[in-house]
Amino acid sequence: MSGLFIAFEGGDGAGKTTQAARLHQQLTEQGYDPTLVREPGSTELGAYLREYLINGQALSPLSELLLFEAARAELVAAAIAPTLDAGNIIITDRFAGSTVAYQGYGRGIDRESIAWLNDFATGGRYPDLTILLDVDPFVGLGRVKGRQLELGLNAGGVADCLETGRLEPDRFEDEVMAFHVAARRGFRQQAAANPERWLLIEGNRPIDEIAGQVWQAVRPLLPPHP
Amino acid sequence: MSGLFIAFEGGDGAGKTTQAARLHQQLTEQGYDPTLVREPGSTELGAYLREYLINGQALSPLSELLLFEAARAELVAAAIAPTLDAGNIIITDRFAGSTVAYQGYGRGIDRESIAWLNDFATGGRYPDLTILLDVDPFVGLGRVKGRQLELGLNAGGVADCLETGRLEPDRFEDEVMAFHVAARRGFRQQAAANPERWLLIEGNRPIDEIAGQVWQAVRPLLPPHP
Repeated sequence: MSGLFIAFEGGDGAGKTTQAARLHQQLTEQGYDPTLVREPGSTELGAYLREYLINGQALSPLSELLLFEAARAELVAAAIAPTLDAGNIIITDRFAGSTVAYQGYGRGIDRESIAWLNDFATGGRYPDLTILLDVDPFVGLGRVKGRQLELGLNAGGVADCLETGRLEPDRFEDEVMAFHVAARRGFRQQAAANPERWLLIEGNRPIDEIAGQVWQAVRPLLPPHP
Repeated sequence: MSGLFIAFEGGDGAGKTTQAARLHQQLTEQGYDPTLVREPGSTELGAYLREYLINGQALSPLSELLLFEAARAELVAAAIAPTLDAGNIIITDRFAGSTVAYQGYGRGIDRESIAWLNDFATGGRYPDLTILLDVDPFVGLGRVKGRQLELGLNAGGVADCLETGRLEPDRFEDEVMAFHVAARRGFRQQAAANPERWLLIEGNRPIDEIAGQVWQAVRPLLPPHP
């Protein structure tokens, strides 16, 4: 018996966290017992590495990549595999697709190596469905900037977007944007190449409308009602 | 112009740290400007991961492996590659051979995957000479235990031997020993398979005698005297 594995992917500010929480809530209301995790994080190791990726020194691209894969391997071993093996549902906010997009398309690490590492870290446990919330990076990063302003955080730039890997503060804004534009292309190409397992949803639609599209895509995949 | 890359390998308590420091001193006295590093550590990331490997929760074997490789990739990018490219000498206390021994032979992760990861993390930068200080684990771990007693540290078991990856405290002593015995076999087999690049030295000889053997092996490899 295997459960259901759903991933949300997309750029910073695309609405992944909001939609993952909405799906989690809807499944709970339907009587399921879903688990919600995020990458990196949701394990002690993941949280520890997330802290470094935010506040540590700039890393070489390869060590950054290996840290994301270490966090992934731990999340798979500690949460994803046991949840699926128990026949339950797990939702993750980012997964292997982010590494292809950011470290592959964004940082330029060769994609065969990234594919090898994703296979190794996941042990072949890939989502049944990956939902890509696609937004123009100028829009998504603008949202993040707005959130930071609301929260009184440093809003001086997009340099604090953790999920993309830490960006050095001295990079020019257009280099940062080129990175996010390349990552978006990476997400879209993954979705186009795997239409049975990826669903692209326009991320600049109203939240309720997107939640409805997500639910329509997930419903047919649900295990027998508990 | 490429420098010289020397690694010390072997079990806990084999004398690697002592001999690496001796070689570093001897080279300095001869007018060289050698760099001495250790794994994991010697970079901000390496020190941060070392701390987790000592004090964090037990990890899955794959994420532990990926952490060691992340620390290695960073050490290569930050210290090893630039030192060699400048034509200088670098000595490391542990390197890729430890991963083959502990995560491969010890933990049972398949060796092709470990070889792939070592190639990836090092970018093909392997030591010109790896010196294996070979000791029976019962002797080496006894030394570590002795050191811990001297230092007033927890000497309740061998469970704190960091370099081997953290061992869960509830493992039986004989499981711990089996792990170290397997790792020793892994070290010896690497040395036997690569006689041009590995040198096995019996680690239970007097320190000065071992230092002499190390110097004899290193001297012919030295770059032109500065």
